[in-house]
Order: sequence, then C-alpha cells, then structure tokens
Amino acid sequence: MSEIVVSLPDGSELAVDEGATVEDVAYEIGPGLGRDTVAGVVDGELVDKVDPVHDGAEVVIVTEDSDEYLRVLRHSAAHVFAQALQRLHPEAKLAIGPPTDEGFYYDVANVDLDADDLESIEAEMEAILEEDLPIERETRSRADAFETYPDNRYKREILEEEAAGEDPVSFYVQGDFEDLCQGPHVDSTGDVGAVTLLTISSAYWRGDEENETLTRVYGTAFESEADLEQYLQRREQAKERDHRKLGQELDLFSIPEVTGPGLPLYHPNGKRILDELSEYARSLNLDAGYEPVETPHLFRTELWKKSGHYDNYVDDMFLQEVNDEEYGLKPMNCPGHATIFDQKSWSYRDLPVRYFEDGKVYRKEQRGELSGLSRVWSFTIDDGHLFCRPEQIEQEVNQVMDAIYEVLDTFGLDAHVALATRPEKSVGGDEIWEQAESQLRSVLESAGIDYDLEPGDGAFYGPKIDFAFEDALGRKWDGPTVQLDFNMPERFELTYTGEDNEDHRPVMIHRALYGSYERFFMVLIEHFDGKFPTWLAPEQVRILPISDDQLGYAHRVKNELDDFRVSVEDRSWTLGRKIREAQEERVPYMIVVGGDEAEAGTISVRDRKERERGDVGVEEFRRHLRSEVDDRRLEPDFIGE
Amino acid sequence: MSEIVVSLPDGSELAVDEGATVEDVAYEIGPGLGRDTVAGVVDGELVDKVDPVHDGAEVVIVTEDSDEYLRVLRHSAAHVFAQALQRLHPEAKLAIGPPTDEGFYYDVANVDLDADDLESIEAEMEAILEEDLPIERETRSRADAFETYPDNRYKREILEEEAAGEDPVSFYVQGDFEDLCQGPHVDSTGDVGAVTLLTISSAYWRGDEENETLTRVYGTAFESEADLEQYLQRREQAKERDHRKLGQELDLFSIPEVTGPGLPLYHPNGKRILDELSEYARSLNLDAGYEPVETPHLFRTELWKKSGHYDNYVDDMFLQEVNDEEYGLKPMNCPGHATIFDQKSWSYRDLPVRYFEDGKVYRKEQRGELSGLSRVWSFTIDDGHLFCRPEQIEQEVNQVMDAIYEVLDTFGLDAHVALATRPEKSVGGDEIWEQAESQLRSVLESAGIDYDLEPGDGAFYGPKIDFAFEDALGRKWDGPTVQLDFNMPERFELTYTGEDNEDHRPVMIHRALYGSYERFFMVLIEHFDGKFPTWLAPEQVRILPISDDQLGYAHRVKNELDDFRVSVEDRSWTLGRKIREAQEERVPYMIVVGGDEAEAGTISVRDRKERERGDVGVEEFRRHLRSEVDDRRLEPDFIGE
Repeated sequence: MSEIVVSLPDGSELAVDEGATVEDVAYEIGPGLGRDTVAGVVDGELVDKVDPVHDGAEVVIVTEDSDEYLRVLRHSAAHVFAQALQRLHPEAKLAIGPPTDEGFYYDVANVDLDADDLESIEAEMEAILEEDLPIERETRSRADAFETYPDNRYKREILEEEAAGEDPVSFYVQGDFEDLCQGPHVDSTGDVGAVTLLTISSAYWRGDEENETLTRVYGTAFESEADLEQYLQRREQAKERDHRKLGQELDLFSIPEVTGPGLPLYHPNGKRILDELSEYARSLNLDAGYEPVETPHLFRTELWKKSGHYDNYVDDMFLQEVNDEEYGLKPMNCPGHATIFDQKSWSYRDLPVRYFEDGKVYRKEQRGELSGLSRVWSFTIDDGHLFCRPEQIEQEVNQVMDAIYEVLDTFGLDAHVALATRPEKSVGGDEIWEQAESQLRSVLESAGIDYDLEPGDGAFYGPKIDFAFEDALGRKWDGPTVQLDFNMPERFELTYTGEDNEDHRPVMIHRALYGSYERFFMVLIEHFDGKFPTWLAPEQVRILPISDDQLGYAHRVKNELDDFRVSVEDRSWTLGRKIREAQEERVPYMIVVGGDEAEAGTISVRDRKERERGDVGVEEFRRHLRSEVDDRRLEPDFIGE
Repeated sequence: MSEIVVSLPDGSELAVDEGATVEDVAYEIGPGLGRDTVAGVVDGELVDKVDPVHDGAEVVIVTEDSDEYLRVLRHSAAHVFAQALQRLHPEAKLAIGPPTDEGFYYDVANVDLDADDLESIEAEMEAILEEDLPIERETRSRADAFETYPDNRYKREILEEEAAGEDPVSFYVQGDFEDLCQGPHVDSTGDVGAVTLLTISSAYWRGDEENETLTRVYGTAFESEADLEQYLQRREQAKERDHRKLGQELDLFSIPEVTGPGLPLYHPNGKRILDELSEYARSLNLDAGYEPVETPHLFRTELWKKSGHYDNYVDDMFLQEVNDEEYGLKPMNCPGHATIFDQKSWSYRDLPVRYFEDGKVYRKEQRGELSGLSRVWSFTIDDGHLFCRPEQIEQEVNQVMDAIYEVLDTFGLDAHVALATRPEKSVGGDEIWEQAESQLRSVLESAGIDYDLEPGDGAFYGPKIDFAFEDALGRKWDGPTVQLDFNMPERFELTYTGEDNEDHRPVMIHRALYGSYERFFMVLIEHFDGKFPTWLAPEQVRILPISDDQLGYAHRVKNELDDFRVSVEDRSWTLGRKIREAQEERVPYMIVVGGDEAEAGTISVRDRKERERGDVGVEEFRRHLRSEVDDRRLEPDFIGE
C-alpha cells in the first residue's frame, strides 16, 4: 500500500496509508485524539470522520472542543427536528436542512404548520434526545437511494444534481428516521444537549423565486441547557436593542417606502450623533497628519475602468448614460483620492501624503438583502488613503492600528483581527501580493496582535487587516480596516521623485477607523442599547421643573449650560411622568428644579442610572459636563456609585 | 383718428393717437424727453423710437441716461465692426451681430481672420467713429430685401425665418454700409464713444452644432474712452483673479477630464476652506434653532413625482433604472426634508421645525455650459427648510434675512435683492401664489429693503427673495435665497395639530445663506483674489527660519500655535525666496525667526500686506490670532496700518 502526505494545522506533515480516513489520521497523531474525533475539516470543508483524505490535503481534526463541533451538533439537531416532524406529521415531505451560524433550519413541504405546532414538535424532539438514538452513517447504491424516496421530488432532485454521479451515496440513520446526507454528525441524539425551535417562515425551493414555496422552520441547539438559556436571553436582549426598533423609538432615522429601499433619512437626533462621530474621526485624522479632501459622487466609467472597479464591481454599481457617455456612482473613494494625488508632482520628502473624507459610496445590494442600517444602498465611509514610500509602510500601518485601538477604547468595544489574503477575483502579480501580505503579517506579529488568517478574503487590489467589533451582546460586526494596495498606484501611474531623482511608485494604504458610519451607528445603537455616552447623546441634559412656576428658572439654568444640548421639559406633567419620559428617551442627565432650587440658585441632578444628587451648583455641573464630554467618557459619571 | 392708451413706468396711463410711435409717446410726455429719445422698451422689448406702440402697451422711453442705452450703442458698434470688416475684407459674408451684456459679437463667414487681424479692423472702426456717419433706418419691400443679398445665405435665411411675413422690412444704413436689422441704434457712428475688439472664436450658425462653423469676433463699446479704459482694467483684474486660474495656483481644486465634466475634486487647501464655510453656516443655523438632518442622494422617482420635480425638472435630472424601478439623484433637498417632517406628528407648539443640511444636488447642465465652479453637475447647497404656522412667516423670513446680512457682512460683500414672482411653469393655485408674494413683499417693505421685482423668476413651487452678491470687481453673482412654499406641504399632505385640535397645513420656507458652496467659493476666490481672511485661509501662518540653524526653534514656535494651521518652511532657500513664495501663496502671516529671535524666544511677524513687526512674544501673537479667527475678521490685523 502506498503512502500519502497530509498537512496539519501546526504546519507539520504526516504520512498515512492511501485510503486513510480522517479518523485514521487522528489515531496516527495519537490514540486519545483518535477516540475523541467527531468529524474533520479537509481543505476547509467539514466532512465525516469516516471520509478518506487525499494526498496533499490540509486536515483539521474536529472534537467536542472544536469551534466546528457546534455546527456538527446543529446539523444533527436538524435531523432530530425532521424525525420529530415525521413522527407527528407523516405526510410531510423533507427537502433540505442545513446547519447555520446561529442554529439550523429545515425546509419542508406537504404539511400545514404554524407557530402553534412548534411546541408539540419541540416536545417530540426532546423525547428523541432522551431516547439517545445512535446516529449511524450508511451507504446505499444510487438505485437503492432513489427507491428510498419514491415520491419525494426534493430528495430525488438532490440525488440528480448535488449527488450526480455519486455511487454509493451516504445516508444517516437514527432509530426510525433516515436522511440522505453527507454528514458529519454527532454520535447519538443524546449528544445534542439542548434544542429549541425559534420561528417559522416560508422559502423558495433552492432559494429561487421561480420555484414553489416551502415551509421553513428555524431552530437552534447547544451542548447544554445552560448554553441554550444564555443564547435565548441574549436573543431577547438583542430584539429589545434592535437598532430598527430603537431607531424609531429614539427618533434617530427612518427608511420610508416612498424614498427608496436601503436609503436612510437621518432625523435630527441621528444626525447629531453622526456629526459627533464625524468630528471625532476628523480630530483623530488631523492629529495623524491627514488632510481633508472632497470628491464627487459621480464619475465617468473611464475612471472605474482605469481603477479596475468596473471589471470587479460592475454588477453592484449604479450606472447611467449621460450624453452618450456612461457614468457611475462611486462604489469606493480610492480612485478619487488617487486622482487628487495625481494632480501634483511629489518629492520623497512630501511623503506620506494622507487624505481623508467622509465619502459616500453606492453599492446595489439585492432588495431582499437590505436591512435597517446594516445593509444599505448608499453608505458613508470614514475613508482615508495615504501614499507612502515602501519603507514607510510598517510605521504607517502601525499608526493606523493605534488610531483603531483608540476608537475601540473610546466606545468600549472589543475586536477580532483578521488578515485577509488574495481573493480569486483580483488584480496584480503574485510577487506584489506576497510582498504585501508578508508586510501586514510582520506588522501584526511584531505588535503581538492575535489574528485569524482569512485566505481569499482580501480586496481585489490587495491584502488587508480587518477588525470585527464585538458588541455588548458578544456579536461581531465588520468594522475598521487597513488595506495595502500596490495595484492602484500602478494603474493610475502615480509617482514621486526619489532621492535619486528618479520616478518611483508610491504604495497606497486604504483605511477606515469605523468602517461605514451606517454599520457603526447600528453597532453603537445596539451596543449601548440607545444609552449613548453623554458626548454622543443627541440630548445631553433635560431640565424638569417640578411645576410651571420654575419654568423661568429652568430656562436660566439652560442658558448657563448653552454649550451643551439641553432642553427644558415645559409640558404640564407630573414630575414622575417627566422623569419616566426622559428615562425612556435615554437622556444621560436630568436636572430637577423645584421652589427650593430656584430660591437657592442650585439644581438637583439625576442620571439615567437613577442616581441622584441634590444641592448642586450649576457651574460645578457645567465644569463636570465639559470634562465628561471632552474626554468622551463612556458613562454619565457626575454622581459616583 | 381713434385713441389708444399706453402705461408708463410710474404706473400712470397716457392716451395717444392710434399709430403713434415711441418717439410720439415721448413728445406727448414732454418735448425735452421727445428730443432726447434714442429708443424705447415696449412690453419688455427694446425697439426703435420710430416703432409704433399698441393699445395697452407698457412703454419705457430710452435716452442716453437709460441703462438700456449701452445696449443700443453696442448694437451700433456691431454695425461699425461689420462696416470696417467689409471695407478691409469685402469677400466676408455677414451673418448675425447682436449686442450682449458685456459688449457685442458678429458672426461672419467666407473670411480668414485671426487675432492679428483684429488690430487693423479696430483701427478702421475708430476711423468710422471719426467719420461720424449718421445711422438711418430704411424700410424696403421683401423683394428688394432679398435682392440686397443675392449671395448671402445667412441674411436670406433670416429674411425667411425671423422676418417671415414682414413687408416692408427694416434696414439700417451708415455711409457705405447697410444691414438687415430691427434696431434700435444710436443716431450716428460718432455717438459710439469708444470701441475695442476683444477675442476671436468660432461658433455654429444659429448655435446649432449640425450647422457650419462661422467666425465670431467679440468686442465691446462704451460712451467714452474713460469708461472703456475702466472696463479693460477690470477685465484684466478679473482674468488675474479667475477662480480657475487661482484654483490651480493655490491648489484648491481640479476638474480633470478623466473624472468627468462639472464634477470638481477639492484638494486639501480647498476642502479646508469649504469646511470652515460649512462650520460657519452650521453655527449660524444652530444659533437660529435649526437642527441637522441628512438625506440620501438617490430616491425613487415616485418621490420626485409627488414633489412635482419630475414634471418640472426631468430634463435636468440624472435618472437610472434599478430592478425595473426608476430612481433619480436629487435635484433639490426639499422633498427629503419634507419626508423627515412627515415621519412624526406635530403640535402647533412644536413649530417652527427647522432642518438644515449641506445637501449635494445634481443637475444635468449641457457640457458646453459647464465652467469651473460656476456651473457644475453636482453642487452642495447650505440648505435649510423650515415648517411653520402661517402667522410665523414674517418672523421666520426676517430671521433668515438677518442671517443673510450677517453673512454678507462677514465676507465684505454687498448684495442686490430681488423679489421673484410666479413663473410660467409652476404648481399651485392663483390665490396661494398671491398670498405668498404679498407676504414676501410686506417683509421687504417693512424692513425698508431696496429690491427689484423680477416677474416670472420665482421657483415652480413659490415666490422667493433672491440675493445677488456684488464682489470686489462690481460683478453680481446669485447667492442666498428665501423661498416661500405653499405647494410642497400640500403635495406631501404635511400637517400639524392646531390649538383647535384640528389638522392644519404648515408653510414651508426654503432658504440658503450662501446658495451653493461651489458658486460661493468661486465668488470668494475672485472677491478676495485668493487672499482669504485668516479664519478661512488653508494655511494661516508660515514660519520662515532665516537659516537651517533655526529649524528647531521654528518647530517649537509651531507647537505653541498648534490650534492654528501653521507650517514650517524647511527648504534651504534664501529668506527672500521664502517670503516671495509665501506671499504668492497668499499666506496671511509669516513668522521670521533668526538667531536673535531664537535666543530671545521672540518672533518677527510679517503679514501678506508686507507690514512687519519685530520682537513679538509668541503668546501675544497667539492671543491675537485666536481673536482674529474667532471674530472672522476680514484682514490680518495684528500689525496696524
């Protein structure tokens, strides 16, 4: 028997017999690992532990401790759902049931389900978990496979298309249930620790709106009841904090049908926050030597052809004919900034040249993909581009990283860092890509930053370091980015005169501290649950007179605080109602003034954490506010714990 | 003989015999005026004094003192040019030669002219002025008129089209020259006091690019040599100050061919100025109770149909299909603001509600009409819209006018005010228009503001007060505007709840303090000749070390001035060259530091008016700069005259 060689995650290589399975590889590494093996990842794809490996394969062993384990378990949970469904509704026809990032779904036909049915199905699923049925892989000939589904056209179609040419084909069997499936799965239904069904909706067969509508049931599963409980709590919190819900309640923005999908209107409260964010980014940019520029939104497509965007982005671009010429709304700001750089001649002494712009870009997402501020047609990037000499890259990337970490700190966000490398659709030669990737790796490593490698996720013009924010609910969102670009300067033939008096090609770095304002604003709304830090809050202080008699005094206090966003509540409500309303609107500070305060010329301060302090001088409070706002502190902290 | 009645500029009416000419009307008013009459304006059109008036005509008598006189004189100058051309180049065929706002032109064919030829033609024109030939009107039958031009197809075409059906037709004759012409003209070539030819270019016959190309010669004329001299001086100054020239020299902006016509890129120097302008408008807006909003640039055309823009603006709009729906880039910001207003319910106590936005709009001008920043495809309006109760109009319009006058004062600009009334293409009933026009008139009159009435120049949705800036060269530019709008609230069905608990329609007011940033920036560049006030200057202070030995000290001084835009000149040039360069770049302040200053810890301050003051403390200068910038003073005034 001849040998093949596979590579392992630590970079080492292992020789195994030809025909060895994932499990064999695991046993080869060590018998303990062999016993714990649940599944494998071969060349990036999750497979059953009994699947064979090929020569040169990259093999990762999946055990209960692996990140991938939850996915395997949820796939088994999908089968448990299908089994329960067939016990209760034998007429149901199963179509397809994959795991997802958040759980699983199963698309089914020929059964009339509504939300009320989920309870009984969930009870049956729990019974199946109790039964602890072994889940076993079984292979059948194609002919037998077709015979298994004499009248299920979905499974037959899968056999004809996805499994075309496979013979034998694999099934997974647990007790009275079997399903055409590639796997992998956990060993037994009892290993699926805890399940729940979440929602019911409809979906087109194969996602194609030309096809018939199926019923889709969403659920999720965890190793333990405790994990599930924690997930459900977070889900509830997330629903409460949904930026679309808070966006309306706090009057931040709207996306009315008449104006168009994915095209948000920012109301005064939302725009105040965006303006503060913009001002903060501006101050970081100016401090770091960036200079402001402004570029148009519409350009001749000649520019987009020159930059390569036309070839790589054309399906997402908003294009139009004007006087027989084609124009496009910008999908990115970089070609505009490169064009500005190109208007002057530069010496090596002038570099780095750094530009920034709150640059609106346009990308034509499918209507069905648009959602609140997270997916829109037009969004604004806090965009910056710098042009430097090759030997300045490391210093410049480091400077950008410092600014990004300052932003994370200011908003109390954590981040995951990833190095994304060359994608399939890309411009530029191999050498240039390798050079760029190795420089970014060296920056990350010499700064001791933990990062994931994301092969193939780079921009089409170069590799990048992406930051994903982790918010208060532990969810991750795309955020800041630093992207090296050796290609755009080539295409725009950008040059500077070197010390040697010769022309040289500068390196271009794309970077954003927030990413898009829309996405970042969404993250902040949900992260803070609308309780924005005082410096960001659209209304920073609301003055609540106990009765209309103190209205005059309330306005005098407002005037003393006139460098802040302060309002006077002048409706004739009870104090309780006034406080409740301010609390609901997340106003950081309330100032209560009654007869005593008016007489003494003092105020009583209450914050939205329901802490109070009486007999405060207005000037003392003003000075505190000034420093709280100027330092961009996260929480109202005039009143100590 | 029966009588007809004409009306005069003072509103009075005058009865004259049927068949009376303009001159007859003038004699009827008084024999002095009759003798001085040069021409007339009948129903807004300039006509010969021998032309008859009709019943109900509005008649204005033109004398040498009238504004229209210069136009008459320049028309005669065009004839003088044609006469001189035919004396020197008898083969030339005359096409058409009208007066313009700045002078006149004549389009000619069948003659090979270049700029060098203009000198000899101008000399001949001056000879014709000397000859003082009487200019006489002559009428001929159509048949005779055609015989006058056996081989001039341009004049024959004019006879067939513009003069279709006229019989007899009028000619003007002076000495050896005659021209098919409606007039009016001055009495004699000697009355054309001073002429000059300016440029030569080409033009399509009748301005239609399908037609053949003619040679166009531009010239101008004045009553006196002194007036001409003054004009030529201003023209020279204007050329020097041309914002396209200064825009490049001062590195403010560019409009490169690759990005598209009418789509400027703002470089850091230009963007710094735009940002200061935006910040200033923002502070005025916030002080006046406006709140910031942001609206998308692309909207479904459903919105533009609702607002009426689609019907009135469609030819100028950038439209595109997305997923079988039509979308348009916004030509105005008002429908977006109206939509935001419409997202909430309002009580009469909430009004006025005031929104502002630096809103980019898009209007598809013909490529040939685009020029620098004065005519562009996309421009940003410092746009504001307020929604108020009808009884709040006067107070709100007055508040806007105050802000506009503050802006004029800050930039040292004068303004002409005009009330523009209902245009032909418009929406809304008569009553609503009359109400709106009378309210604006009452605001102007009670504030004692001089204004011109511009009938038919209003927006399609309502009447407006327009301000035209007058710059340092006496030229006028469209600027701020206040526009009443009773129509948009109707179309968007905007409401507020009145004190009576019933729904009421708010009034919408559109206003801009600058107009468009692009146009205003252009005005400022030329108005200041690039010598921007210190608060606006992209670079406020440049520190010039006498030798490289003072570079360290120069940087320390820069650090002490770090809340201003300060640079250190670190090239090893002579002090003279450093000063010259800073002077050319219009930097308001130069700080010269040599060995003495470094030792004493002082600075020597020089301003761009070439005034100097030595032995200055850095802190004293910093304090002065702070107040000069904060007060937005027009000139660097650290050093007194």
